[in-house]
Amino acid sequence: MNRSKRILAIAVVAAALSLPPAVYAASSGQKVNIVIQVTDNNPAKWNLALNNAKNLQKTFGKKNTTIEVVAYGPGLNMLRFDSAVSSRLGTIAAQGIKIAACGNTMKSMHLTLADLSPAVYEVPAGAVEIVRREREGYAYLRP
Amino acid sequence: MNRSKRILAIAVVAAALSLPPAVYAASSGQKVNIVIQVTDNNPAKWNLALNNAKNLQKTFGKKNTTIEVVAYGPGLNMLRFDSAVSSRLGTIAAQGIKIAACGNTMKSMHLTLADLSPAVYEVPAGAVEIVRREREGYAYLRP
Amino acid sequence: MNRSKRILAIAVVAAALSLPPAVYAASSGQKVNIVIQVTDNNPAKWNLALNNAKNLQKTFGKKNTTIEVVAYGPGLNMLRFDSAVSSRLGTIAAQGIKIAACGNTMKSMHLTLADLSPAVYEVPAGAVEIVRREREGYAYLRP
Repeated sequence: MNRSKRILAIAVVAAALSLPPAVYAASSGQKVNIVIQVTDNNPAKWNLALNNAKNLQKTFGKKNTTIEVVAYGPGLNMLRFDSAVSSRLGTIAAQGIKIAACGNTMKSMHLTLADLSPAVYEVPAGAVEIVRREREGYAYLRP
Repeated sequence: MNRSKRILAIAVVAAALSLPPAVYAASSGQKVNIVIQVTDNNPAKWNLALNNAKNLQKTFGKKNTTIEVVAYGPGLNMLRFDSAVSSRLGTIAAQGIKIAACGNTMKSMHLTLADLSPAVYEVPAGAVEIVRREREGYAYLRP
Repeated sequence: MNRSKRILAIAVVAAALSLPPAVYAASSGQKVNIVIQVTDNNPAKWNLALNNAKNLQKTFGKKNTTIEVVAYGPGLNMLRFDSAVSSRLGTIAAQGIKIAACGNTMKSMHLTLADLSPAVYEVPAGAVEIVRREREGYAYLRP
């Protein structure tokens, strides 16, 4: 390797290192990060969102894929322990898909984690969580 | 600093400079830009969108955050001077959140700015505005 | 050009080369790629999505723009050969806008391409297609 090639190689590595991790991953294809938003109070949409999550994980490969379903606003009803998709939530979470409940919505609906499926965890605010993920390079899907 | 470290440092800076501004901002965390789409004719969705805008601004900090709410299609009804959220629009705009009305939708609904809340401004086309913002690195949210 | 300027120039080029193509395109403004999702069973939304596609193409210029409309879930009904927007699909496709049908949804609805408008083509899975496009740098729009 001559000197100018060496400089170029260093520059390419440096350029890669200076990119946000997700953009780098997207270019190398090594890691797929996806945030799925649920804001409708509609069981058909809930099932669609969970089907999408499952299928995306299967397509891109479990170990290469991070999928986070974020429910907020009227969509939070999806996460109630007695919701129409409650039995699916445990299965989906056991497969490594993350399911986040919006803390702000929980407060305004007077709900605590005890009212929700044990498969979910709380984030301070659903919209903030989604924007954060997008800024980390996650693809956004709103079924 | 030895020579190869110096070259690496130059390359890192150069790499950062060559990124589109928004990607660079996202990686440095200095600026948060968000475009929020409203296309449903649904007052509950309008309130949710405005709540999200307010909360995102509060979380990321007013001076670091640019938030633009873009209403088009059936969502334009949110911006009528007598809409269900009309009183909120002035408050939201006074806090520095931008509220854009789609000019194409206005034309097809035979509306002018005089029919809309004084808090809003017109853009030529809502969908074009949103795509432009995404290309500038704005995170996209569609409640 | 002195030595440090030469190194900087090489680094800038290398940085550009190491970016995913779409991010580079977005920064240079040469190419606009947009994926439009249709997942609602709602003819008003279908018309809105097609209007958006047409208008975006007109605004950014046909030769500089790739637009793919992806219908899945309840949105697949848009693509049936006898749907409310069927006559528009041929016109839109003839203008170079791509219209993709989700193969998974087709299977679950017991449909084949023969049941859909001749203007459309099949992709394995709508959600996967959309995420792939986002990772390639496409702007995402969900009317």
